[in-house]
Amino acid sequence: MKAVRLHAYHRTPVVEEVPEPTITGPLDVIVRVGGAGLCRTDLHIVEGQWAEKSGVGLPYIQGHENAGWVHELGSAVTGLAVGDPVILHPLATCGLCPPCRRGDDVHCENSAFPGIDSDGGFAELIKTNARAVVKLESGLAPADVAALADAGLTAYHAAKKAARRLAPGRRAVLIGAGGLGHIGIQALRALSPAELIVVDRSPEALELAETLGARHTVVADGTQVEQVRELTGGHGAEVVIDFVGEGGALEDGLAMLRRAGDYHVVGYGGLLTVPTIDIISTEINFIGNLVGSYTDLAELMALAAQHKVALHTAVYPLTDFDKALRDLDEGKVRGRAILVP
Amino acid sequence: MKAVRLHAYHRTPVVEEVPEPTITGPLDVIVRVGGAGLCRTDLHIVEGQWAEKSGVGLPYIQGHENAGWVHELGSAVTGLAVGDPVILHPLATCGLCPPCRRGDDVHCENSAFPGIDSDGGFAELIKTNARAVVKLESGLAPADVAALADAGLTAYHAAKKAARRLAPGRRAVLIGAGGLGHIGIQALRALSPAELIVVDRSPEALELAETLGARHTVVADGTQVEQVRELTGGHGAEVVIDFVGEGGALEDGLAMLRRAGDYHVVGYGGLLTVPTIDIISTEINFIGNLVGSYTDLAELMALAAQHKVALHTAVYPLTDFDKALRDLDEGKVRGRAILVP
Amino acid sequence: MKAVRLHAYHRTPVVEEVPEPTITGPLDVIVRVGGAGLCRTDLHIVEGQWAEKSGVGLPYIQGHENAGWVHELGSAVTGLAVGDPVILHPLATCGLCPPCRRGDDVHCENSAFPGIDSDGGFAELIKTNARAVVKLESGLAPADVAALADAGLTAYHAAKKAARRLAPGRRAVLIGAGGLGHIGIQALRALSPAELIVVDRSPEALELAETLGARHTVVADGTQVEQVRELTGGHGAEVVIDFVGEGGALEDGLAMLRRAGDYHVVGYGGLLTVPTIDIISTEINFIGNLVGSYTDLAELMALAAQHKVALHTAVYPLTDFDKALRDLDEGKVRGRAILVP
Amino acid sequence: MKAVRLHAYHRTPVVEEVPEPTITGPLDVIVRVGGAGLCRTDLHIVEGQWAEKSGVGLPYIQGHENAGWVHELGSAVTGLAVGDPVILHPLATCGLCPPCRRGDDVHCENSAFPGIDSDGGFAELIKTNARAVVKLESGLAPADVAALADAGLTAYHAAKKAARRLAPGRRAVLIGAGGLGHIGIQALRALSPAELIVVDRSPEALELAETLGARHTVVADGTQVEQVRELTGGHGAEVVIDFVGEGGALEDGLAMLRRAGDYHVVGYGGLLTVPTIDIISTEINFIGNLVGSYTDLAELMALAAQHKVALHTAVYPLTDFDKALRDLDEGKVRGRAILVP
Repeated sequence: MKAVRLHAYHRTPVVEEVPEPTITGPLDVIVRVGGAGLCRTDLHIVEGQWAEKSGVGLPYIQGHENAGWVHELGSAVTGLAVGDPVILHPLATCGLCPPCRRGDDVHCENSAFPGIDSDGGFAELIKTNARAVVKLESGLAPADVAALADAGLTAYHAAKKAARRLAPGRRAVLIGAGGLGHIGIQALRALSPAELIVVDRSPEALELAETLGARHTVVADGTQVEQVRELTGGHGAEVVIDFVGEGGALEDGLAMLRRAGDYHVVGYGGLLTVPTIDIISTEINFIGNLVGSYTDLAELMALAAQHKVALHTAVYPLTDFDKALRDLDEGKVRGRAILVP
Repeated sequence: MKAVRLHAYHRTPVVEEVPEPTITGPLDVIVRVGGAGLCRTDLHIVEGQWAEKSGVGLPYIQGHENAGWVHELGSAVTGLAVGDPVILHPLATCGLCPPCRRGDDVHCENSAFPGIDSDGGFAELIKTNARAVVKLESGLAPADVAALADAGLTAYHAAKKAARRLAPGRRAVLIGAGGLGHIGIQALRALSPAELIVVDRSPEALELAETLGARHTVVADGTQVEQVRELTGGHGAEVVIDFVGEGGALEDGLAMLRRAGDYHVVGYGGLLTVPTIDIISTEINFIGNLVGSYTDLAELMALAAQHKVALHTAVYPLTDFDKALRDLDEGKVRGRAILVP
Repeated sequence: MKAVRLHAYHRTPVVEEVPEPTITGPLDVIVRVGGAGLCRTDLHIVEGQWAEKSGVGLPYIQGHENAGWVHELGSAVTGLAVGDPVILHPLATCGLCPPCRRGDDVHCENSAFPGIDSDGGFAELIKTNARAVVKLESGLAPADVAALADAGLTAYHAAKKAARRLAPGRRAVLIGAGGLGHIGIQALRALSPAELIVVDRSPEALELAETLGARHTVVADGTQVEQVRELTGGHGAEVVIDFVGEGGALEDGLAMLRRAGDYHVVGYGGLLTVPTIDIISTEINFIGNLVGSYTDLAELMALAAQHKVALHTAVYPLTDFDKALRDLDEGKVRGRAILVP
Repeated sequence: MKAVRLHAYHRTPVVEEVPEPTITGPLDVIVRVGGAGLCRTDLHIVEGQWAEKSGVGLPYIQGHENAGWVHELGSAVTGLAVGDPVILHPLATCGLCPPCRRGDDVHCENSAFPGIDSDGGFAELIKTNARAVVKLESGLAPADVAALADAGLTAYHAAKKAARRLAPGRRAVLIGAGGLGHIGIQALRALSPAELIVVDRSPEALELAETLGARHTVVADGTQVEQVRELTGGHGAEVVIDFVGEGGALEDGLAMLRRAGDYHVVGYGGLLTVPTIDIISTEINFIGNLVGSYTDLAELMALAAQHKVALHTAVYPLTDFDKALRDLDEGKVRGRAILVP
């Protein structure tokens, strides 16, 4: 089959013919790829930043946001049939460890991560296991939802945890209206009646945010903290979701948080630095957010089927991988880049 | 191997030689039985009361509360080794349906129930799947804990749900201090600081209840409602757990429940009859309780390993099945009857 | 001042001049009435059905759904000023008993209920206490929201409790699309992304339900159970909210409920009758719902200010009380009847 | 009456005659002091560290952990009688603001803090309001429980929040077995079955911890992280409660925390510094903890009445304030110092 493989770090991956994956375990599932999201993580992989962490052997196939149709099933798989349209949870989990038992499969003690530590979806076929497969409702095209599999799932997961605190009349500040942020806005609107205040440096991103349901938008021009405090009656917001996690976002976000509020860390890169007396005297919380669970992904697909969450995508043929990667690197992709074999 | 098989309803099951079970699926697990609980459900099965519901074909092997040692493993099982001491969750679940994904495996859409709808543990070997197997900490003997697999698990599950409402200073009434009730007392003591009031007809059962941690015991002699209301300052208790569910238990229990209280239905047989105006004007809840999840069973085993939950058992050799069944029927078993091959 | 007073049961209340209420306690608040909802409970009061329960002495002023403007304040009231537009929680609570401390003020151990057990809002002025007063955002007119104070609050409270189970992709059945039901639909839409299925006998009520956000509507023509089961893939819905609570609603509702589902009892009149084995074998819950808390009412007002919950009202001058009562009795009121002094 | 008053910062407070407090508001309560806890905060007040923060005018009476007997009641107080034994929540809250309404009275928007920003309990009488008063069960002596009013309440509050994650088989690490820590151990034992691992520099403190219910104790001798990781199977604990919050406690605590774990910040002084990537890649949370609510204090008193939480105290006559302060400063007080008028 055709695939894009990384042969060496710091060199562009190559479109080439590779052997098809085969079923070796009873719960294996092979999926014909309908679309695979390309994101900044893929750039970082090429740059070698994940080499040590993933331990993956080269050459290998990237692509960790995948959707398509069932192609072949292991002997013990139930509930799926060849041809079913599906989206893939990024992790192939075991279903037997304590976290899997509790439905907290993101913390599975024996998971694989196709596209990161094994072959992924920049190919005609991808192999995962039955625990990763969410069936799509008719009406959802794999290429349209593929990028929800990881980036979207992370945003949904944070929004779901945040929504528990967001009774009517409460407010949430979202820092960053980019890839994750614009899914976060849509998810929060679906899950809660809270007033959403979106902060970003880009006026264009904020325009989109407004059409997606932001009640207020704030350009991060140096006055953002002041503006948000005014919009929240001087108190700050009950919830801040930080999709940036570096630069001044953390300091800003903290200054926008209300007493007893929840600060959701989603974006990363920076250093959280806060005196313990400030944590206890206002009784605030910092909530970590990794990707969502299988159940979260199934819920996100329900929202997508109801047109409550939608992605802007830019489609590239798999054979134009080179161009897609370059466009991404140069900031020319509008929405999420999707590779289609 | 040796097993006890039911050949016809209304006739005593027979000790006989049968073929050993064999691994046919990748997640299958065969366990050498260390002990299998015998309970009233087994009597009802012999009497044919479950014939239609289970649809099981005769002859078959009963026994749905099982513990032992791993004997043989399917090809895809991880985390277990031959010889591991284990207790078996009563259900062999699929791990792939939505409830299994959420950790709510009791409501698995594709489960089997060995001992009820397929061969169970009144035998030297029993077959289940890897999703049912909880490893025992060293120090726990299979025959000692086997009866916790179903009866104990049900009591634990109800206690865990009830404990959420039981802040210090609150009270729980437990109706019935028999098999389930005496596990319920121990579980509630481990999970909450609530004051426990135990109601039963039998003064002997109440004596045991007191040694297990009941703060007050009340003989159900016709004055039980009055007594409980007095013990609760005239208000009733925040939680009632009804392990009886028939006879006057429901009427009594309702009269012992405080405004905004939770009534846990565990025992069954009777008819809940209550005017809707009484439900809304006091804003009470009725909470159904089935058996616990895999995670619940793992937690119950943690309590057992810490000696916070213990069972009284009466051990019978498997070949004395006949006598065990008779003793049970005649009310001669002290604690739970355990069959040991 | 002008007021409508009930002088004798079974006789129409009389419009007459009565003394104005006066501040006697430090937390007292007197409100100039802007609108007072008239509902079926008022009919039942006139018929004497509440005489024993409320113990109120005659003559007295009915009216338990009130909104208006602050007229006079007790010496210890903070946070309010004369002229503030306000809606009144139906209960005047103590703020000192354990339930009030926990925010569960509906179960206050020392509350008064103006309009039921003391003078209410069918008058120019009404006296309550500071614990009952929710300030309205500018833009909300007292007469427009008055009927949310009790009927609307009850529907919102049930919807809020139900929403906890309603992740994306789940379904809620609402039985009854009348006064409470149509607020329930709007509240559920604001609080959850669940698919709403509304059941009623009246095609007109269902038309309104659809415009308010029902995904499916089902005429209760004898096939309603069958239809709902089909709409839910044969499983039933995760949540049923029963705004009727009598007639066949309970039997229907139970048949529409999924395994492990929540049945919310809101309407009343009938008898809940269900075998305990059906409660435990499917592990369902029955959840009682009384009126909401002060916090619930503040949240409902936030939704009203955001135009997410709106009432249809028919306004009558207080002096036309007679006609309003007759219209209500004869089923001629469209929406909720509001009396304006 | 006799009282200890601070006349100038950096000078020892003076025992002297002062006017008795008088009832001025309808919810005021004057309490005859039975015991008042003296703690390090009182040292810091004398040193002027709180001068700006509290804004209190000198001279004034310190003492913020108070218990005694009701002496006089405002006109609107219900549920209390002169002579009732009581403990006082540190805050006198309003009962009318949104947080008070939700039961989250610690975040009251209009509270006073006797002993910090107004006259406190180092006197024969103290004035607070009815919202601060928890009645004691007979059997609890005010002087024995006074120090639970603030330090104990803080520890209980953190333990209660932590207990939600502590199912059987889970583990909690408590860093610091001093004043707050030894209440935290007792509270956690009452609220959860978790295995408690206590870390402290002092072997004596750890000996006490063991008698109070610690399963494992670890001397902080440089190997503490390694030891805790070994005791937790290499994973770390699901919960860390940090009663120290400075020095190396934070770094140690983080290294002892399991994936998806909760880090409770209680002690303060240091700086929390953690890369956001470490927060998201393990999905951990930092939970702030201030003092508990009124309801928390009522629950803690229920535990005290059941002898599940007890304090070690060193009693000083109020007139020996000087010596008590000196002993505290020199680390000579065993347990908590209590001043008795």
